[in-house]
Amino acid sequence: MAEAKALTPRAADFSAWYNELVARAELADYSPVRGCMVIRPNGYAIWEQMQRALDQMFKDTGHQNAYFPLFIPQSFLAREAEHVEGFSPETAVVTHAGGKELEEPLVIRPTSETIIYSMYAKWIQSYRDLPVLINQWANVVRWELRTRLFLRTTEFLWQEGHTAHATEAEAEEETVRMLRVYRTFMEEWMAMPVLTGRKTDSERFAGALRTYSCEALMQDNRALQAGTSHNLGQNFARAFEVTFQTAAGGLDHVWNTSWGVSTRLVGALIMTHGDDAGLICPPRLAQYQVVIVPIYRNDDERGTVLDAAQRVRGELSGAGVRVHLDARDGMKPGAKYYEWEGRGAPLRLEIGPRDVAGGTVMLARRTGGKKESLPLAGLASRIHEIMEVMQRDLLETARARREAASIRGATREQFVAHLEAGGGFVYAGFCGSAACEAEIKEQTKATIRVLPDQEFRSPSVPATCMWCGKPTVAEAVWARAY
Amino acid sequence: MAEAKALTPRAADFSAWYNELVARAELADYSPVRGCMVIRPNGYAIWEQMQRALDQMFKDTGHQNAYFPLFIPQSFLAREAEHVEGFSPETAVVTHAGGKELEEPLVIRPTSETIIYSMYAKWIQSYRDLPVLINQWANVVRWELRTRLFLRTTEFLWQEGHTAHATEAEAEEETVRMLRVYRTFMEEWMAMPVLTGRKTDSERFAGALRTYSCEALMQDNRALQAGTSHNLGQNFARAFEVTFQTAAGGLDHVWNTSWGVSTRLVGALIMTHGDDAGLICPPRLAQYQVVIVPIYRNDDERGTVLDAAQRVRGELSGAGVRVHLDARDGMKPGAKYYEWEGRGAPLRLEIGPRDVAGGTVMLARRTGGKKESLPLAGLASRIHEIMEVMQRDLLETARARREAASIRGATREQFVAHLEAGGGFVYAGFCGSAACEAEIKEQTKATIRVLPDQEFRSPSVPATCMWCGKPTVAEAVWARAY
Repeated sequence: MAEAKALTPRAADFSAWYNELVARAELADYSPVRGCMVIRPNGYAIWEQMQRALDQMFKDTGHQNAYFPLFIPQSFLAREAEHVEGFSPETAVVTHAGGKELEEPLVIRPTSETIIYSMYAKWIQSYRDLPVLINQWANVVRWELRTRLFLRTTEFLWQEGHTAHATEAEAEEETVRMLRVYRTFMEEWMAMPVLTGRKTDSERFAGALRTYSCEALMQDNRALQAGTSHNLGQNFARAFEVTFQTAAGGLDHVWNTSWGVSTRLVGALIMTHGDDAGLICPPRLAQYQVVIVPIYRNDDERGTVLDAAQRVRGELSGAGVRVHLDARDGMKPGAKYYEWEGRGAPLRLEIGPRDVAGGTVMLARRTGGKKESLPLAGLASRIHEIMEVMQRDLLETARARREAASIRGATREQFVAHLEAGGGFVYAGFCGSAACEAEIKEQTKATIRVLPDQEFRSPSVPATCMWCGKPTVAEAVWARAY
Repeated sequence: MAEAKALTPRAADFSAWYNELVARAELADYSPVRGCMVIRPNGYAIWEQMQRALDQMFKDTGHQNAYFPLFIPQSFLAREAEHVEGFSPETAVVTHAGGKELEEPLVIRPTSETIIYSMYAKWIQSYRDLPVLINQWANVVRWELRTRLFLRTTEFLWQEGHTAHATEAEAEEETVRMLRVYRTFMEEWMAMPVLTGRKTDSERFAGALRTYSCEALMQDNRALQAGTSHNLGQNFARAFEVTFQTAAGGLDHVWNTSWGVSTRLVGALIMTHGDDAGLICPPRLAQYQVVIVPIYRNDDERGTVLDAAQRVRGELSGAGVRVHLDARDGMKPGAKYYEWEGRGAPLRLEIGPRDVAGGTVMLARRTGGKKESLPLAGLASRIHEIMEVMQRDLLETARARREAASIRGATREQFVAHLEAGGGFVYAGFCGSAACEAEIKEQTKATIRVLPDQEFRSPSVPATCMWCGKPTVAEAVWARAY
């Protein structure tokens, strides 16, 4: 690690930059198993911070965690027609176990609707048992042909919420609530702005009534689906006979929702904020928000400086800052700077003999700007302020970049030109036809990311579909996507 | 839930009691997949508390989390001769994926030594890269024929630590350090006393040099292996060519350790503390340490009582107590008591109109004794004190029970009689012969749980093996085990 060779610049080859950054920062690695990644400690620490924040948000909205089996009987997948069509081509199948061939092959879960709703059928009897609000943190497997670390791997880690409700309205409310939770997390924790809205039928989750999505725009102006929330209607309840006695004494199928985000978010974080020097991690998700690098030329200075550095570490840590003192011997300060820049540590504090004498530390921000000398007095609260500003600035910078790459009210020619000029979000009129959507995808590789929610809609939308000229039924946001 | 039917008493049928308790408290359930369990929210909440405590202990001892693939190429298992012999009979194997037959079948990890050390071979070059101290939280699969919820399931959740060191001494130190961490966790958090010591070769982990274990004694006087820590020597390093340049400039294989505990600990917790009314959860691991049950006869009282209950909840929650207000309407207080007793909530606070008027609450302990009226003033600190005492008492009660069921310096006749009289730990002289050990196991179903660590050894040990009469090489602790 900490090789002298610089990363390929983003502008030269975004994809190479991404791969090199992930390797350099030791975030993840390829494994001996095709398409499976190893999440290394530096990458996993970001995922842990994400998990902690999301898990609290799920609990604050009334959800509990549980754990369901990795294995799904193959016949279960087949019970919901769209679901099996969507997922069975990419499943991994256990055919032998304990030295024998299984009577029925077991699929490794690509998602857990079928196994979970088969349990709900057992647990739910009456309207008094509703709502059921459960989440699980788990690994899932989808046999992908083209894989990229974090973005698309055969096995990935995620959370999947699965809820059951007495009415369609409650299920819809839950679906939208969790979409908002995701958006809040992505904006406030990841500093990643997202558009929210509904997916068209062709991009809908296999088995859902309606799918909603959070869509982000990466620095190469390709869109990334960052999280989805599905109103499953009664589709799975019918397939798995999840019924309940209503308050009125009748019998009805429950209404389900499911929603998930995955380790893909680590990839999204990298591609939203990273620069040519490496990762930039928003303070709220950084393993170490502050890294202290001591500077000394001899043993005398070393003692004094390390003492001071340890005091600073203690003070910051006591004030709730995640801080690391990089006291490695035999490594020059410059090499440490380089390494922590690559890993995205938001703030670096340098402490040398002159700083100790003056009762100060030297602050460097990962986002650039001049170094700044800070007094030790009141350091922790100053660091908190600086992190808050950085967190906000990262979001605003990303939002400004996204908006600069978005066009509204596009004609067909403008749409094509925008894609050719580098891409970004294109807001345009859409006729609602799946055939038109498919033709556009085939010819331009762009897809409808969302039919945007009210607040993202353009003040005025062209009256006709930008592609076929038929009347607009909804505004659509197009982009080439990961 | 909350059915009127009492649990089968432990004394009548311990196994039936266990199964009924798990179902009644909604801790776990059988899934449609043979041998796989569903961990329900009440059970998962205990596992989450366990994870949180252990994870912090791992981090405090310098470990970082990472994540390695679920799949292991079948050939990897075979590289370490003992390892493949130990694990291959119980593996689940993926032969098809993405609609095609795989060139090489993939084993679902039964444990991750092989896949992890294949990565360490890539990451470790020099003594400067050591030690590597990594843990992962993951699911693993072992195709078991006889399964019990939590205790032995085909899929289970666990953590597995995997470390690499420059010297044998450091690896041994790490192995013993993590055994101590486990013991501390089991005693201080689970209130479950354990014996620690070394396993004999026949009970050693497949591929290890030495295995150390924490052994607990359940209420039916059967032993349960609660956690193990393995010194793997250079066995896996040789199999996966994990070499490093030494400080002296030579090349050597690293020294590995691995250590793990699993969701089995939830079963151990149940069987250590549960009583005929259900689960008793030690306060430090309880999802809700305090459950508040409001008592009222009409709407007027309801308003007053709920207001007071909410204030109590707020105060306790603010003081770091995990507290739940059970405000369900249409359910009698007695039914709530019954339910929370079954689920093991350590403390119950009852609040009725007279309590509100008097500025008190009524406290009931899950461990029994008279109810006690407590003043609202200073309630939180009193609750903390009561929980500390309960936590300590649970440990002492379990320790006293274990000691009452243990005999030392046993002869063959005493050993057999003790097993027939109900079992427990038997300390005896052991000749060190695997053949003798096997014969005893075959004839009595008892196994050597550990060759106990110094502090658990008897003041005097018979000079001869209790079974064959040959000279003692070490004291052994025998028991029938889960």
